[in-house]
Amino acid sequence: MSKIPTFLFFFFFSSTISISLSSHPLDPLSPAEFTSVQTAVRSHYSNHTSVAFHYIGLKEPPKSAVLSWLHHHTPSSAAPPRRAFIIARVNHTTTHELTVDLTQSTILSDQLYTGSGYPLFTFEEQIAANALPLGHAPFLESLRRRGLHGAEILCQTYGIGWFGEQGKGCSRIVRVMCNYLDGTVNLFMRPVEGIAVTVDLDRMEIVGYRDRGIVPVPKADGTDYRGSKQRPPFGPGVNAINVVQPNNLNRWANWDFHLGFDMRAGPIISTASIFDVDKQTFRRVLYRGFLSELFVPYMDLTEEWYYRTFFDAGEFGYGLCTSSLLPGADCPDNAVFMEAYFPDKDGNPQQLPNAFCIFERYAGDVMWRHTEAATPEVVTEVRRDVSLVVRMVSTVGNYDYINDWEFKQSGSIKVTVGLTGLLEVRGADYTHKDQIHDESYGQILSENTIGSNHDHFLTYHLDLDVDGESNSFLKSKLKTVRVPNRTTSPRKSYWRVFVETAKTESDAKIKLGSEQVDLIFVNPNKKTMVGNPVGYRLIPGSVAGPLLSDDDYVQIRAAFTEYNVWVTPYNESEKWAGGVYVDRSRGDDTLATWSMKDREIEDRDIVVWYTLGFHHVPCQEDFPVMPTLSSGFELRPANFFERNPVLKAYIS
Amino acid sequence: MSKIPTFLFFFFFSSTISISLSSHPLDPLSPAEFTSVQTAVRSHYSNHTSVAFHYIGLKEPPKSAVLSWLHHHTPSSAAPPRRAFIIARVNHTTTHELTVDLTQSTILSDQLYTGSGYPLFTFEEQIAANALPLGHAPFLESLRRRGLHGAEILCQTYGIGWFGEQGKGCSRIVRVMCNYLDGTVNLFMRPVEGIAVTVDLDRMEIVGYRDRGIVPVPKADGTDYRGSKQRPPFGPGVNAINVVQPNNLNRWANWDFHLGFDMRAGPIISTASIFDVDKQTFRRVLYRGFLSELFVPYMDLTEEWYYRTFFDAGEFGYGLCTSSLLPGADCPDNAVFMEAYFPDKDGNPQQLPNAFCIFERYAGDVMWRHTEAATPEVVTEVRRDVSLVVRMVSTVGNYDYINDWEFKQSGSIKVTVGLTGLLEVRGADYTHKDQIHDESYGQILSENTIGSNHDHFLTYHLDLDVDGESNSFLKSKLKTVRVPNRTTSPRKSYWRVFVETAKTESDAKIKLGSEQVDLIFVNPNKKTMVGNPVGYRLIPGSVAGPLLSDDDYVQIRAAFTEYNVWVTPYNESEKWAGGVYVDRSRGDDTLATWSMKDREIEDRDIVVWYTLGFHHVPCQEDFPVMPTLSSGFELRPANFFERNPVLKAYIS
Repeated sequence: MSKIPTFLFFFFFSSTISISLSSHPLDPLSPAEFTSVQTAVRSHYSNHTSVAFHYIGLKEPPKSAVLSWLHHHTPSSAAPPRRAFIIARVNHTTTHELTVDLTQSTILSDQLYTGSGYPLFTFEEQIAANALPLGHAPFLESLRRRGLHGAEILCQTYGIGWFGEQGKGCSRIVRVMCNYLDGTVNLFMRPVEGIAVTVDLDRMEIVGYRDRGIVPVPKADGTDYRGSKQRPPFGPGVNAINVVQPNNLNRWANWDFHLGFDMRAGPIISTASIFDVDKQTFRRVLYRGFLSELFVPYMDLTEEWYYRTFFDAGEFGYGLCTSSLLPGADCPDNAVFMEAYFPDKDGNPQQLPNAFCIFERYAGDVMWRHTEAATPEVVTEVRRDVSLVVRMVSTVGNYDYINDWEFKQSGSIKVTVGLTGLLEVRGADYTHKDQIHDESYGQILSENTIGSNHDHFLTYHLDLDVDGESNSFLKSKLKTVRVPNRTTSPRKSYWRVFVETAKTESDAKIKLGSEQVDLIFVNPNKKTMVGNPVGYRLIPGSVAGPLLSDDDYVQIRAAFTEYNVWVTPYNESEKWAGGVYVDRSRGDDTLATWSMKDREIEDRDIVVWYTLGFHHVPCQEDFPVMPTLSSGFELRPANFFERNPVLKAYIS
Repeated sequence: MSKIPTFLFFFFFSSTISISLSSHPLDPLSPAEFTSVQTAVRSHYSNHTSVAFHYIGLKEPPKSAVLSWLHHHTPSSAAPPRRAFIIARVNHTTTHELTVDLTQSTILSDQLYTGSGYPLFTFEEQIAANALPLGHAPFLESLRRRGLHGAEILCQTYGIGWFGEQGKGCSRIVRVMCNYLDGTVNLFMRPVEGIAVTVDLDRMEIVGYRDRGIVPVPKADGTDYRGSKQRPPFGPGVNAINVVQPNNLNRWANWDFHLGFDMRAGPIISTASIFDVDKQTFRRVLYRGFLSELFVPYMDLTEEWYYRTFFDAGEFGYGLCTSSLLPGADCPDNAVFMEAYFPDKDGNPQQLPNAFCIFERYAGDVMWRHTEAATPEVVTEVRRDVSLVVRMVSTVGNYDYINDWEFKQSGSIKVTVGLTGLLEVRGADYTHKDQIHDESYGQILSENTIGSNHDHFLTYHLDLDVDGESNSFLKSKLKTVRVPNRTTSPRKSYWRVFVETAKTESDAKIKLGSEQVDLIFVNPNKKTMVGNPVGYRLIPGSVAGPLLSDDDYVQIRAAFTEYNVWVTPYNESEKWAGGVYVDRSRGDDTLATWSMKDREIEDRDIVVWYTLGFHHVPCQEDFPVMPTLSSGFELRPANFFERNPVLKAYIS
């Protein structure tokens, strides 16, 4: 038996598992590098200037430099220069885009941004805004009228969107909405309705206040989800199983990839390659994959709700909202954990412990099998399906999103997202469905509690490099063919495959569900021995598209969800499907506007944008905390290999 | 902490796990009961009569008797009478349907069947038919001309379907097609093309023979999938993980169900109920669920292929094709195994060892979680997702279907089917894609090897009894609503839920994919405290529908695949979506014909028929053995419980 080929599995910073800590050009900023940014920017501006960091992330080196480094580097070879991209608000009035040389700690560029929209909210300004109502006399009066105690109030910041306002109407305002604790930690089940507080984040003051009237606050009883607060009877219960893994995970099967972190996107998988046993070489699959935007529009038109059309990556930072994973619960016992870093508003690096876990998964499934009973002796060959999972949880306020990137030995990359956590509910007068005669915008879940109808659209940026950069997108359509002459066959019909190569961006837009089309991404310059172009197929999970009108301001801002599939030529600046500045954006910098150029995408370095959707009609099982609902998609080799790549997998 | 409620988890015969062996009215026939059938039928006919058993299965007691027994039985109470239903061919000429009293070993009825179509093939007649070509001089001549050795030939029986033939054209004929071993066990990769052998099964002789000419037999090289036959280099490999389970599985969490076996359907799940912690009682969910038919049409019109439109349950017996599961490979180490029994053609009980495995699954997933960072102290609550899986593998010739019924503590029943095993390939002259200019009906996978395009449609019979028998089907449609007056809201649109109750069968037919509709099954007579009807939702996995013309004979026989969802009133005789007699059927006894009665289905005991589809365009990774491709569906509670049923699950 030949030796196991050596793989490099790059981790981007110190972790508890025993691996060599090679650096990689796509490593996220280290704590020292955050400090370098801070130093450079502080010395660039005068002492009297207020600078708030809204985004600090790696400015990725050009793709060619990364690939060249990956293929040629030796321990002594120079890595591409390390740079950071920064978005800062200066003196609470202007937005600046800066580039910093991380090694020299110098400013390379500083550009004023004058377009529409604003950067991510910082934690600090959200905390400050959330505290304002309790110092606002009319709010205290509203509480008094409702018989609520200020000490039990917790408020949240909500982006206010854009509904056609111009000029001053487009300032950096948000809504602050409050919830009530008083005996529970499940504040999201206890909204204080009827009150609209508008806050200007730059001035950090309340600029609008309205109390439309009293709506009951849903009761605390039954909402607390902590185990320690439950009373008998308990159940269900199972006999716990243990997963025991003898060895470390530092080199995993046939995959090699890099895991990075970004405060906006969360996990970033890059330079994923798979070892081809027949060819005895690594072959490229995915240059970069990450969640580009997560759009969550609610379907409630009441004054306190109509604007709730969240862009969780661009407004709140999907990475910034990372929850520390609980060992033995969020991940199995064989998982290893890694931390991540994000900057606070002053640029100080903050540690997120247990931001990721990585584990080998064996769920009892079969990678392939066959029993042959026709041969003289019965043959049964079975291979167990063991994969590697990279997990991260982002808790954007009430919702928890469990993000899995799973690498299968058979060559598939499966992306799964699990939705759990707490619904966003509206307080209401109703205590029974029979009382609801008008539009309730949701479903009654408990007394005075309406679970609002809403959607989740997760748009992934997938820079596929199938066996190299130059790729094409094939729409492989299955169509019924009538058999013209019954003398040729007793059959009257069959189906065959009609392959259309997408030439330009407009060819590539696809709304799934309406017709039967397989999504194939090939390298047209590489063929298998029998002549098939090497490729990967994207297999969708649950399919959903937007149900908002195209001319609705909300949908104009989220126009990137209009199609489940878009393909664009690679462009360094096109990372965020909803635009760089999403808070109060106007839809003028989205995937939908870029794609209007209708650029050529055949035999090019292309990027696939895939949108996974959920329409969520809440039900009582989602109260007071939701059982996980999962979906995802799979990138699966399709004539990428000459044959089944796990035919000769080790038998465990 | 209160005591764990007691559950009964019925197994239908002896197994290695420590459980009480209660009998259940839906238990499949025991070996002794098969013998009882054999004795009764032998004494019923004269000694000179030839009787071949094509089907022996439990004749289920009336649903009311089963439910009454379940709710009222004590150790001494009488179970409903045990009866068997038998389909036999008598003197190779007529089909009889018999009912046998299993306790008395007496014939209760014997009816001649005079309609169209024939019963399942027996193993014995397939073996006899497969041997005929090697005793047929023209076939030996065909081998000689091809330079093939008879000793390496293995033949298979294929149903020939129905293409409008009348009278004698409708006799019990099949096609026998041969493959070549000669250095491999993967006979399915080595078809001997160009030869059509027609066999009359009743006369057991060749009644038609044609050799259209020589087509290369694909080479043996690279086709063997046995681990022992692989040569270096090997890979990929992983560090094996072990799953250790300390205790037995005799009582599992909050589920109670019965597992049965049928030679046609395979596993049958019945009387599944879930314990409601709040109500402290079991509540009914599924009276019976099983695979009713599996339709696999190929898209190849050549003379040796056009008729390959398999009905794997009705022609070959999905249960009869059960493969014994390999411990530690087909199922994890914590699995328990159970045997099953089927009758041979003479009615002798035959044991299928390891026909089922049952295991507790923990794949590292999260049942629910939330991290609350807004409260004074950060709260993180996480529950691990542990479920119970019942698995069975059916190997219908070349294909292996991995069938999982998964019971989740959160109340979901997930049905998953994994497709693996061997493709059906056609031998061809081509050695490279560039040589293919005409219709090849498939994809080139290797030299001289075309993987034929085909579909898999799995139609499940789901007799839902959501909290009781009387159920209704709600089509919950999400539709865009324009906001009429912009003065009421800055929004221009939203969506809301429009619920339509299906009154009759025609209301319930749904082709998925075309519109956004949630499939809800409710008990209209039971409401939650806030007034929602208690229900379950069917969440589809991958969606596919037939691409054959409606007037094609193939599609007429498989008309039950035309819609993904049908709902019928419960009718004891309506079990097999393609009809009882599927071999050479004419489509006159299918779900589609029954449903033409357009019966009432509101507030009735109803049955849901759900069809899960795959269109399969083969790729080289599927050669010489396919990595598993999975899909399925989920039955998930929707206002069945007052709240999240695992809020108070034990923390492990």
